[in-house]
Amino acid sequence: MAVMTNSTLETSTRSSTNLSVADAIRTRVSIRKYVQEPMNQDDLREILELASRAPSAWNAQTWRFAVVQSPEVKTKLQAAAYGQGQIGSAPTVIVVYSDMEDTLDTVEETAHPGMGDEGRANQRKTFEGAFGQQDVAQRGQWGLSQANIAFGFLMLAARSKGYDTVPMLGFNPQAVRELLGLPDHVQFAGLLPIGKRAEDGFPQHRHTVERVTKFY
Amino acid sequence: MAVMTNSTLETSTRSSTNLSVADAIRTRVSIRKYVQEPMNQDDLREILELASRAPSAWNAQTWRFAVVQSPEVKTKLQAAAYGQGQIGSAPTVIVVYSDMEDTLDTVEETAHPGMGDEGRANQRKTFEGAFGQQDVAQRGQWGLSQANIAFGFLMLAARSKGYDTVPMLGFNPQAVRELLGLPDHVQFAGLLPIGKRAEDGFPQHRHTVERVTKFY
Repeated sequence: MAVMTNSTLETSTRSSTNLSVADAIRTRVSIRKYVQEPMNQDDLREILELASRAPSAWNAQTWRFAVVQSPEVKTKLQAAAYGQGQIGSAPTVIVVYSDMEDTLDTVEETAHPGMGDEGRANQRKTFEGAFGQQDVAQRGQWGLSQANIAFGFLMLAARSKGYDTVPMLGFNPQAVRELLGLPDHVQFAGLLPIGKRAEDGFPQHRHTVERVTKFY
Repeated sequence: MAVMTNSTLETSTRSSTNLSVADAIRTRVSIRKYVQEPMNQDDLREILELASRAPSAWNAQTWRFAVVQSPEVKTKLQAAAYGQGQIGSAPTVIVVYSDMEDTLDTVEETAHPGMGDEGRANQRKTFEGAFGQQDVAQRGQWGLSQANIAFGFLMLAARSKGYDTVPMLGFNPQAVRELLGLPDHVQFAGLLPIGKRAEDGFPQHRHTVERVTKFY
């Protein structure tokens, strides 16, 4: 694992942008060409911290992030994503995955203080009751649902700070696990190239609210 | 299906709040007791519209919303959620689900104009290639992953407009399908009671960024 030092990467200016939720959502479009400069590492950390504040059932926090900035690792990640150029173009790629087995191994860490001492002590029983009879793939799918909420938070946190992204599902999951040294059981929400836009992207094209909503 | 008229519900003031993504994320906590007043219907529509702008692979937009405001339906929904009081307390409950079969039946609606005429014509082939060999439950799981991104967008859109929510997974899915007249194949991201907070909720309790992130 090649760890980049701050001195290598922290050459770009910190963002002072702080968009509203509505503006972040309305201006978020998929961007595949990025300005060729390293990402400000304080912005990166703040965006990750905001994403990690997503809610999850039983506060399980199943999401995990693998941040790829080393050019060598990024080249290999691009190969695992069938050569798609947005990975090479973005200064940073965040791999969002869920690790339900790590979650289950360490439920005491996530038990919320608001549950009280007894509630916290019962957290392991709750998880064992819910997932003990499920196989790794089945409970991994549950963990992935939680991780997808954080995946969405991550995109909006990035946009609010003036960055652009493109969520990607087109890659070989096992090749990504091997490249990053991740256990076989982890499941991926997706890859998220992130940087400053060097193209306009396409306008959003969506169903109307009426098409996707029923009122009772 | 009981449709409420605007004249019944639109008695509350429109929100002028417009929080940043960071403020919406940091102030979003689960709220189970709500101010007893109907939700402003223009705010509700704007929040749904923002959630529907979530990204999805191939722009599939698998999410669907069922908005429950009729007291009679809400009482039955609470029963399907094991009597949990936050459903009765909230003026509005948004049921977020994915309908992958509706998505597959109507892929021409979601094909993005940016794909060009040929790309749009190929949209059905793309979906048939990806999902034609999968069974309904398997491809439904894929649709649910996309819907969970919109579920997160919905919570942040609500918070940005000054509303509070609590995502819920504790309910009987089949009972909810029957109550709302939804097909058996739909899968639920969750229930989302929404309204103005009448309690403080618990502060967020999260892993550190370092605990959930690896750098490469």
